[in-house]
Amino acid sequence: MNTFIEKQNWRYATKKFDATKKITIEDLDFLKEAIRLSSSSYGLQPYKVLIIENPELRAKIQPAAWGQSQIVDASHLVVFANVTEIAEPEIDSYVQNISATRNLPLEALSGYADFMKSKILSLSPEFKNTWSAKQTYLAMGNLLNAAAEKEIDVTPMEGFIPEQVNEILGLNKLGLNASLIATIGYRHTDDDTQHYKKVRKSQEELFITL
Amino acid sequence: MNTFIEKQNWRYATKKFDATKKITIEDLDFLKEAIRLSSSSYGLQPYKVLIIENPELRAKIQPAAWGQSQIVDASHLVVFANVTEIAEPEIDSYVQNISATRNLPLEALSGYADFMKSKILSLSPEFKNTWSAKQTYLAMGNLLNAAAEKEIDVTPMEGFIPEQVNEILGLNKLGLNASLIATIGYRHTDDDTQHYKKVRKSQEELFITL
Repeated sequence: MNTFIEKQNWRYATKKFDATKKITIEDLDFLKEAIRLSSSSYGLQPYKVLIIENPELRAKIQPAAWGQSQIVDASHLVVFANVTEIAEPEIDSYVQNISATRNLPLEALSGYADFMKSKILSLSPEFKNTWSAKQTYLAMGNLLNAAAEKEIDVTPMEGFIPEQVNEILGLNKLGLNASLIATIGYRHTDDDTQHYKKVRKSQEELFITL
Repeated sequence: MNTFIEKQNWRYATKKFDATKKITIEDLDFLKEAIRLSSSSYGLQPYKVLIIENPELRAKIQPAAWGQSQIVDASHLVVFANVTEIAEPEIDSYVQNISATRNLPLEALSGYADFMKSKILSLSPEFKNTWSAKQTYLAMGNLLNAAAEKEIDVTPMEGFIPEQVNEILGLNKLGLNASLIATIGYRHTDDDTQHYKKVRKSQEELFITL
């Protein structure tokens, strides 16, 4: 069987982590690099990613995430926080990054910058927030797949109260909103759910071929 | 270097596909399986995935996607279409799938079914639509990563007019909305953008460590 498929079948949304097992610095750096290389609309990466090891902070976050044990038992907590209202500075900063990375004069990129601004800055605040939040799901995809490759467990979570997590982490004043949480580490041998058969739609149900 | 990272650096949003190269049935099945195994909130997979080879249909869609050549030149077009207003039947059908897959009586799952219904059915129509659309970004993540593993090119696209694509594909009457498009196939040797250096935020800019 193909490696990718094997690893997809190996992974599951871990319900109980082994609190004694920590991810190594090297593996954490690998996961960060996988997140960093994620695709995003225009390549803008309109989000920050918080890597939280601090136990006091995680204990504070736990009640905002329905008390789920993974928040405190996992090796690390990852919070994806989207830029709530993307504005000119983010686009300018991205264009400067293109210029520096590809050794191109800024003037050569002004048309592309104007194109992005015309598309993005006219969106409603609500649409901007939703749109940047969607990009964090691609980053989560990279985290899930990269971790599976190394048999590191990840639980992706939408089950938390963003307002409370924003408050605890001071995200609002940074123009950010907690869109997704992942707990990463190693499954506990006691976690029965690791033995449950994966439930997915059949190809017949999921796909339409035209 | 790690395989996952290598493949991330290999991939890019292909601007020009080689129209003479088709994905094999085996590889297409692998990509479908990778999409099928994607994570989603509660595991609900609230979307359909259209795999479109038909050239006439793709020619019709091209103008709705800013005339991008990939729509017609790639081996296949993939349209992710989210369920716009998830309702009781989708949740019941999922619970039946859990019951069948794990050989559990439906009654044992009624608490979980009621929990999902209490969470999901009370959401506003707008929130439901956004939420199911977000899940398609996780499926896109799986497509991108699985394809990269086999050195199959993918261009993820938000640059299209959903209303027009919905109309062309008759998605509205199925309760679906085109949320994302991917073109899949093989890069043309002429596509200069394959040689451009990848532009990403630095780890320092992207991550906050607490």
